[in-house]
Amino acid sequence: MAPFDHPFLGGLLGDAETAALFAAEVEIARMVRFEAALAEAEAAEGLIPADAAGVIVATLRDFVPEMAALAAGTARDGVVVPELVRQLRRAVGEPHGAHLHHGATSQDAIDTAATLALLDALGLFSTRLDALEQALQQLAGRFGTTRVMAHTRMQAAIEVPAARKIDSWSEPLARHRQRLARIAEEIAVLHLGGAAGTLDRLGDRGPAVAERLGAALGLRPVVARHSERDGFADAAGLLSLITGSLGKLGQDVALAAQSETGEIRLASGGGSSAMPHKSNPVKAEMLVAMARFNATLLSGMHQALVHENERSGAAWTLEWMLLPQMAVATGAALRTALELVPEIAFAGRK
Amino acid sequence: MAPFDHPFLGGLLGDAETAALFAAEVEIARMVRFEAALAEAEAAEGLIPADAAGVIVATLRDFVPEMAALAAGTARDGVVVPELVRQLRRAVGEPHGAHLHHGATSQDAIDTAATLALLDALGLFSTRLDALEQALQQLAGRFGTTRVMAHTRMQAAIEVPAARKIDSWSEPLARHRQRLARIAEEIAVLHLGGAAGTLDRLGDRGPAVAERLGAALGLRPVVARHSERDGFADAAGLLSLITGSLGKLGQDVALAAQSETGEIRLASGGGSSAMPHKSNPVKAEMLVAMARFNATLLSGMHQALVHENERSGAAWTLEWMLLPQMAVATGAALRTALELVPEIAFAGRK
Amino acid sequence: MAPFDHPFLGGLLGDAETAALFAAEVEIARMVRFEAALAEAEAAEGLIPADAAGVIVATLRDFVPEMAALAAGTARDGVVVPELVRQLRRAVGEPHGAHLHHGATSQDAIDTAATLALLDALGLFSTRLDALEQALQQLAGRFGTTRVMAHTRMQAAIEVPAARKIDSWSEPLARHRQRLARIAEEIAVLHLGGAAGTLDRLGDRGPAVAERLGAALGLRPVVARHSERDGFADAAGLLSLITGSLGKLGQDVALAAQSETGEIRLASGGGSSAMPHKSNPVKAEMLVAMARFNATLLSGMHQALVHENERSGAAWTLEWMLLPQMAVATGAALRTALELVPEIAFAGRK
Amino acid sequence: MAPFDHPFLGGLLGDAETAALFAAEVEIARMVRFEAALAEAEAAEGLIPADAAGVIVATLRDFVPEMAALAAGTARDGVVVPELVRQLRRAVGEPHGAHLHHGATSQDAIDTAATLALLDALGLFSTRLDALEQALQQLAGRFGTTRVMAHTRMQAAIEVPAARKIDSWSEPLARHRQRLARIAEEIAVLHLGGAAGTLDRLGDRGPAVAERLGAALGLRPVVARHSERDGFADAAGLLSLITGSLGKLGQDVALAAQSETGEIRLASGGGSSAMPHKSNPVKAEMLVAMARFNATLLSGMHQALVHENERSGAAWTLEWMLLPQMAVATGAALRTALELVPEIAFAGRK
Repeated sequence: MAPFDHPFLGGLLGDAETAALFAAEVEIARMVRFEAALAEAEAAEGLIPADAAGVIVATLRDFVPEMAALAAGTARDGVVVPELVRQLRRAVGEPHGAHLHHGATSQDAIDTAATLALLDALGLFSTRLDALEQALQQLAGRFGTTRVMAHTRMQAAIEVPAARKIDSWSEPLARHRQRLARIAEEIAVLHLGGAAGTLDRLGDRGPAVAERLGAALGLRPVVARHSERDGFADAAGLLSLITGSLGKLGQDVALAAQSETGEIRLASGGGSSAMPHKSNPVKAEMLVAMARFNATLLSGMHQALVHENERSGAAWTLEWMLLPQMAVATGAALRTALELVPEIAFAGRK
Repeated sequence: MAPFDHPFLGGLLGDAETAALFAAEVEIARMVRFEAALAEAEAAEGLIPADAAGVIVATLRDFVPEMAALAAGTARDGVVVPELVRQLRRAVGEPHGAHLHHGATSQDAIDTAATLALLDALGLFSTRLDALEQALQQLAGRFGTTRVMAHTRMQAAIEVPAARKIDSWSEPLARHRQRLARIAEEIAVLHLGGAAGTLDRLGDRGPAVAERLGAALGLRPVVARHSERDGFADAAGLLSLITGSLGKLGQDVALAAQSETGEIRLASGGGSSAMPHKSNPVKAEMLVAMARFNATLLSGMHQALVHENERSGAAWTLEWMLLPQMAVATGAALRTALELVPEIAFAGRK
Repeated sequence: MAPFDHPFLGGLLGDAETAALFAAEVEIARMVRFEAALAEAEAAEGLIPADAAGVIVATLRDFVPEMAALAAGTARDGVVVPELVRQLRRAVGEPHGAHLHHGATSQDAIDTAATLALLDALGLFSTRLDALEQALQQLAGRFGTTRVMAHTRMQAAIEVPAARKIDSWSEPLARHRQRLARIAEEIAVLHLGGAAGTLDRLGDRGPAVAERLGAALGLRPVVARHSERDGFADAAGLLSLITGSLGKLGQDVALAAQSETGEIRLASGGGSSAMPHKSNPVKAEMLVAMARFNATLLSGMHQALVHENERSGAAWTLEWMLLPQMAVATGAALRTALELVPEIAFAGRK
Repeated sequence: MAPFDHPFLGGLLGDAETAALFAAEVEIARMVRFEAALAEAEAAEGLIPADAAGVIVATLRDFVPEMAALAAGTARDGVVVPELVRQLRRAVGEPHGAHLHHGATSQDAIDTAATLALLDALGLFSTRLDALEQALQQLAGRFGTTRVMAHTRMQAAIEVPAARKIDSWSEPLARHRQRLARIAEEIAVLHLGGAAGTLDRLGDRGPAVAERLGAALGLRPVVARHSERDGFADAAGLLSLITGSLGKLGQDVALAAQSETGEIRLASGGGSSAMPHKSNPVKAEMLVAMARFNATLLSGMHQALVHENERSGAAWTLEWMLLPQMAVATGAALRTALELVPEIAFAGRK
């Protein structure tokens, strides 16, 4: 019933490449990677035996989760990690299993894994933004001097070169790429705080463990941000800025492709079950839908900033329900825009 | 990556019974049911041959869609129906296949199927609301006279019997059941309009076909409401009212179950990976998350009221992305509340 | 800086008649009316001396609040009532002043006053919905048989009579009027609960006082709904349904009035500072803006359903920040639609 | 009826200093400043007579708008500038008046003025963020070593020093200040495009005029961004990040100040009309309300990214209805937090 991996709507609304980054198996694999690297870091700092770390790392390399038990555990605990740690410890066996997840808390694993996922997604989107800017540049190359009508307040205004319109689609994308680079830098932090953000079980070795773990995972060691959600909310804002700009492109294309306007012709359009003569600007419409979808969900990500105390089950869960969807919607919008732009032909004024 | 049918989060956030009502196969089956009943109604009104209707009905009874082709078709057309009709017509074969979907448009099939799904969901929710009111009544039976502290503006106010608190959870549910009955009645309409809402291809037989088809599907025949989305938006509002009231219940339970307050004890709580002594009010927190989720998505359903012209690809798609999720969130919240309430024990003032 | 009573934007976005219902002086007058009627009801039930009630009622008739002190009190207490009660008691003087507000709490006065304001607004909107349906009927009378192009998915579909389009604007309004009547009935309740909803200070006279007070104010006496906010959220949903349907009308008009389409001509349009030849569909655009505004704010009204415990300062304040604005936006949209519809001329197909 | 300049709610919810930046008179003064500087720049580039510029600049220095006529003009044109230009030209008189607003469009004046207002607000907020960080540092100085209970998922977890909690409030503010500095830099652009963004009436002098005008107003000359709204939406996101972090602080304070928890005592609390013994955490609650308010409105600012064609009356107006309110809410939240923090005393564990 979810739109993105829906058996038939997914063809229209989904994006396999982005969705793969948020697949449950991949999420678990990232948490397992966190636990293995944690054990190594803690062994290097003398907090757990080197033997234990060796066995943990070796075992986790081949770990396959029992997904049904994870689901049952998540239903019970509100979070997957306690059951995952049980499975991991069982796989590692005694006596080393007990050293796994030492001094860490569920949120350390989950927020770190979520950060890695988001960074992967941002990397993908950066590439696509770049490709899209190039596609728009090519469009400008083909049609930039074609005269088109500018419309203000839904009325014909004056003629402008198509390049003006194309630039107004492209320039925000360049700004989004800069924002993306900056946000990717800002959020690339390790979430390691232990029960209440103080790494209380790691004694004076906490900072050194964080340093090592961060280095292993490519994340900056900082004081844990369990209850400081501005990084995730800011990233969500970027996703919605991207889809919003693509939605504007889509809306413009749909308006210019209207039967009566005909300033844009689309190489491909969607078919109708009642009117075979029609060619619908489906991809342009999708961009508008994705923009409004993310603009809607963004509000919830900002509601989740009111994250009470040292960890809010409610606010945190709300993020899980929203942010991956926003990411896939962004991926789908970028994919759709990359398909749409090469299909655009400016016909000039009728 | 979607929360509700997620391999492990689904255990916490999903609701299998509600999700089943929105499963892709079930959605397709409802559209197929629409097409079969349409053929029968049109044959009865002499618009298509009775033979054709007979073969259509018989064939559709055993129809199994090719889902991958439906996904590809949806990606192309923006809507599943053109490809579905192709598959159905091919299954029926010549010469009768051409009579299938006569005079109808994609939105007729989809909006009618969506209405049937929503009505099923509302029926389920009505039963659950009823069961939840009974569970709250039993809770009042057990603990109604226990003195608990009322809190206003986050401060202890005066003592009240627990019955007062329980009633404040229960009474909105009774109102929601009434709203639900009324909305279920209001939205139980047949969406049959043809290309532009005028049933142009059915000549003067349009109203008679609608009458027959509505009777077959249990829906009132009305002038098509393709671009009038108030029924769906109003239903979405009801879903958010329900989860909102359950979120209030959940927030109250989590506050009363705080370690320092301890006025409520929960028979089961979630475990922590770092602090085995803790018992977390996971179900109560879920109710808050679901409330904020639906409150967030509701906004998009109302944005979709700005449904331009006779059919908006963008606004309509936005509904598909939001309403089923809101329904499953509502089902999940009701399920969770039904689990939570029997686990509540009022401990009285410390 | 607020849009509705802004010195120059107010001309475009405001609605004086609706705004007057939510003016601070009028809000205070409603609370004063509540306090006077409460005193009378309590005297009739023997809870306060008849003399006191007499003096209270007589004094409150001419009461003029010191607004600056109310603002200071609200800043301190988070709610205007404590300072208002101080001013009222001072005006009444000793010994009767102490009997004013007996057994009531701030929320009793404010929620009851808010209910009365909302009922007034709904009454006004019902009248305007009725007038707007008539205006649309007249439009159909003038242009109903004109052939216009139906557009689906932003593409010309088939010709339909303008009556079809006009009906799609009008029929939701008829449904909204029915919803409005029902919601006005549902929310017309007295909010009287005392400190924690149990009327604890009124002994066994609570229900009788509520009965009398409700009768005096035209509101049903019910168990107080201090923390049950579904009535207000449901009413907010109705406001957004109304503006949403008007936004659809506005969007359709703006699209049909496009220079290239020209199916609708508007008797008046807005001027441009750069292009004197233009005639902008300003009123149509306003309707879209109002629809999206209310769709946005509605989300917050549903977030406020998570109203913790017996009274939430945070959630309650959030309602104050949203609901009056939504009401004025609705009034402004209805006013604008009533101006726009008579200016519409269907030109027929170019 | 608007919350921020409401006669009595304004005391609680408003912020005079921020509101002053968005006052109608100040907005007009900024547009007048734009027109004067434009005339000077155009004269320097030989587009209008130097005499005209001289008279325009001298006249505009003392210009007092007729506000009622501006309201009427805005109602008619959807935008204040056409009537404002009329008033300005009348004030300048013939023959020079005709040279005022040469080659510019309404959006040039309004977006530039809005940018200046937003930059002023961001400057004010930066100062307040700085002061708030200092106040939190002082709080840490006083109470940083006090042991307080960390709470995760609404349950007591382990003890931590109060400094941990205070840091979790403070660190996001430091990040917000960095975001603010960057966004202030990004949005500090001149909006000058003429009718359709091409400065068509300025011939080859467009860039030079923009250069001069930008220098005069302290804004970077760029290609006009009339329909590229990412700067405003991004700034709105920042406002909501700020209020969200303050809402988290407020929620934490309200929870720690609960009667049963008592880990925080507030020097001042709000009074109750029913329970004189209570001391309500009004300021903390306000911070939560402001956070949820801005999180709600942010969605609409992102919906407005779908800004059709070269200028959207609907999407642009929606911004006017939302962004100033978000700014004042941010100012009010910062003001309230600055009042609240010095009133906090950590009492340590009961």
